[in-house]
Amino acid sequence: MDKRHIQEIKKIITKGRVLSEPSDLYSYSFDGSFGTFVPEVVVQAKDVQEIAALVKFANRELIPITPRGQATCLSGGPLPVKGGIILDMTAMNEQLEINAEDLVAIVSPGVLTANIHKEAEKHGLMYAPDPSSSHVSTIGGNLAENSGGPRGLKYGVTKDYVIGLEVVTPQGEIIQTGGRTVKNVTGYDLTKLIVGSEGTLGIITKAILRLIPKPPASETVMVIFDSLVTAGAAISKILTSGILPSKLEIMDQASIRAVENYEPMGLPTDAEALLLIELDGHLAAVRDEAMQVADLCKKVGARAVKVPQTQSEKAEVWKARKLVSPAIVRIKPTKISEDATVPRSKIPEMCQRLQEIKKKYNIHLVVFGHAGDGNLHPNIIADKKDKEEMKRVEQAVTEIFQAAVELGGTLSGEHGIGTMKAPFMEMELGKAGLDMMKRIKEAWDPNNILNPGKIFSEPGQKLVLSE
Amino acid sequence: MDKRHIQEIKKIITKGRVLSEPSDLYSYSFDGSFGTFVPEVVVQAKDVQEIAALVKFANRELIPITPRGQATCLSGGPLPVKGGIILDMTAMNEQLEINAEDLVAIVSPGVLTANIHKEAEKHGLMYAPDPSSSHVSTIGGNLAENSGGPRGLKYGVTKDYVIGLEVVTPQGEIIQTGGRTVKNVTGYDLTKLIVGSEGTLGIITKAILRLIPKPPASETVMVIFDSLVTAGAAISKILTSGILPSKLEIMDQASIRAVENYEPMGLPTDAEALLLIELDGHLAAVRDEAMQVADLCKKVGARAVKVPQTQSEKAEVWKARKLVSPAIVRIKPTKISEDATVPRSKIPEMCQRLQEIKKKYNIHLVVFGHAGDGNLHPNIIADKKDKEEMKRVEQAVTEIFQAAVELGGTLSGEHGIGTMKAPFMEMELGKAGLDMMKRIKEAWDPNNILNPGKIFSEPGQKLVLSE
Repeated sequence: MDKRHIQEIKKIITKGRVLSEPSDLYSYSFDGSFGTFVPEVVVQAKDVQEIAALVKFANRELIPITPRGQATCLSGGPLPVKGGIILDMTAMNEQLEINAEDLVAIVSPGVLTANIHKEAEKHGLMYAPDPSSSHVSTIGGNLAENSGGPRGLKYGVTKDYVIGLEVVTPQGEIIQTGGRTVKNVTGYDLTKLIVGSEGTLGIITKAILRLIPKPPASETVMVIFDSLVTAGAAISKILTSGILPSKLEIMDQASIRAVENYEPMGLPTDAEALLLIELDGHLAAVRDEAMQVADLCKKVGARAVKVPQTQSEKAEVWKARKLVSPAIVRIKPTKISEDATVPRSKIPEMCQRLQEIKKKYNIHLVVFGHAGDGNLHPNIIADKKDKEEMKRVEQAVTEIFQAAVELGGTLSGEHGIGTMKAPFMEMELGKAGLDMMKRIKEAWDPNNILNPGKIFSEPGQKLVLSE
Repeated sequence: MDKRHIQEIKKIITKGRVLSEPSDLYSYSFDGSFGTFVPEVVVQAKDVQEIAALVKFANRELIPITPRGQATCLSGGPLPVKGGIILDMTAMNEQLEINAEDLVAIVSPGVLTANIHKEAEKHGLMYAPDPSSSHVSTIGGNLAENSGGPRGLKYGVTKDYVIGLEVVTPQGEIIQTGGRTVKNVTGYDLTKLIVGSEGTLGIITKAILRLIPKPPASETVMVIFDSLVTAGAAISKILTSGILPSKLEIMDQASIRAVENYEPMGLPTDAEALLLIELDGHLAAVRDEAMQVADLCKKVGARAVKVPQTQSEKAEVWKARKLVSPAIVRIKPTKISEDATVPRSKIPEMCQRLQEIKKKYNIHLVVFGHAGDGNLHPNIIADKKDKEEMKRVEQAVTEIFQAAVELGGTLSGEHGIGTMKAPFMEMELGKAGLDMMKRIKEAWDPNNILNPGKIFSEPGQKLVLSE
């Protein structure tokens, strides 16, 4: 890119802003993952026609475009690894319309996900996906990465609630996919192809989200286990009992201790695992189910079961889970948050493998996450200034990916592939499987201008955390 | 194709059968929709490696392959419109494995969907999609067409329950998509792209389906309305009350009269509409919800509300809905079953438009279907021998599609595009949207050998029912 390009972009973008000062560029050079990549120009877009014109221009001039929301991404999605244009979508946040009769929300990409939750609730409705970052992340980012969250167990992930999109294609055409109906089999499902494609297949400029009635009541159960294996058995028992909790979260001993150190709240630091279970639905149903869950856990051999009665008691219990992330970064400054996911039945085995990896590489590993759907979050705490430690971390992360795939799981349950996991794609998908994905990218974006360097690795590319 | 080709195919297929007698070929020439297309050879496959070898051969020799299950399809998916090979997948039915701990079923494509329902129930689980044809259709066919059904309102469609596939690509590679985990964001979602692609992107040879706990109880409510508009208002009231029924079906006056003529069961033939509502879940919850639904309908102005108490009473009520299809073909022999779908709020308007079309073209139109998700089934009853009548039917069908799209809906909610609706794709998707779909087809199947002639129309192609 040169000055002429930036002048051209300023002509195209009249409703938004174009930033090219070094300080602005720097503030767009990182996300929630690793690495710093400075873009050549930042466009804060506000209008779909202008975005389409910008993409047409970039496609003609072969300038990379990386769309981004709030950049809370944990896998490098919003990093402009090939330079070029950062397309900041956060200013495109005008529309947040709830249509209660059609049970849909129509939203602009820059809207914060938590605001969709709030607005839907005003109508007695619920937007089910609840990534942990929902109070700071945009729906556009959630869509690009197909974000998950604890409610995935019962309600599924972002993709399951998107029924229509407005998208600017890599060649600058504006298309509509899907629509306002839950049932739609008119041709290929471009909606679900684009959701989770990490900004490599199109720029989402509007979305139609499916809403459901908000469950009228919820109950929480906290269960303490002396052994991780018993906790695994309890998870199986619950999930095969005919009850589908809305959340089923696990914290291992390292997580419990980190939280208790950070903010003492009486957690049992000698316990090997703690399960937090939420049931939602009709009041009579959830009360009954909470009792059943408590009984099942006791029978399996839980040390203690607690069913908080008041809203504040419930909030206190969930606070323990919420504090894990802030607590562990107190230990060491660098957190590598993984989301390798295994079939539910393999959770005990995965926990075992994680403990072995922890020992083998002498790393600080904390395990917590969404046990109900096999989506654990092994978090490694390290200090990125310590090159030797980071080398060990790289090896440990590689082995975590291998363990997940060997156990019939996947590299990424909800964080995305981005740059970090790209080198491991073929391990999971095989050459032919990966090739079919590449064909779509090449057919849609022959010039590879849309978020290049993501999902698909370059020859010889390896995981690097130690730079 | 010539004899040499058939000899080659017989060498490739050793575990299945190869049929080339005219009588065999004829019996594979039709499905549940229109037209007769005789294949050149039929392969009853049993083995994925042999299918892969067959596809490689066909791709080299440029011979079309049309995969099919039980051919209950209502849109022409299994019709070999370009001749070539029919690949009958019904004999590939060995695997029907329930893994209760992982909450998944692993199934071969030839398994009948109803058998998956039965097997899951033995474990206290449920495979949620329930297309009306489930007792005669294969899961492979359901996957290819992304079948819906009445439970779509609460539970979604086939696609929402598929988390992994084994697929033979159009060039004869065997790939695995997704896996056994509900959360998976490892690259593009090929699973959801292939499901609903009508056999044009790959041949599904195995599927991993997501199961959920079977709801322990259900209640049914039948409501009679003097006016269709009031019925529409009741639907809205129910869906915005915080209750999500598992089924919400409508029958219009023509359907009520057809059923009552076919098998008198005391239905009110002077009523304009009848709603059948099913609630499922915890016993206390569904009892309470059934009462709420009954109250809401009365308040809106229903003529009568009936809450059947026993299982046999419930079955009797649902029988009315089940008899609509057999009842209407008694009137005239040819049934054109449409599935144009509109946003829920547009149901009353769509019903109005349908009555206008009925009058304008003097056709016999019956409307029933899945009102809760806007997926109506306008059925036209005619006699295909009456060319003049069929011309009017063609025009009426075209106007039904236009009405659905104008009201913000879609050409097809659950039957698929196939041959019949292909000419209308651009009307809904626009040129650019349709082009992005075509690019995927061309990138995956450059020789266009996999189910050619479906989804994408040929230049000048029109809807033809009158041949």
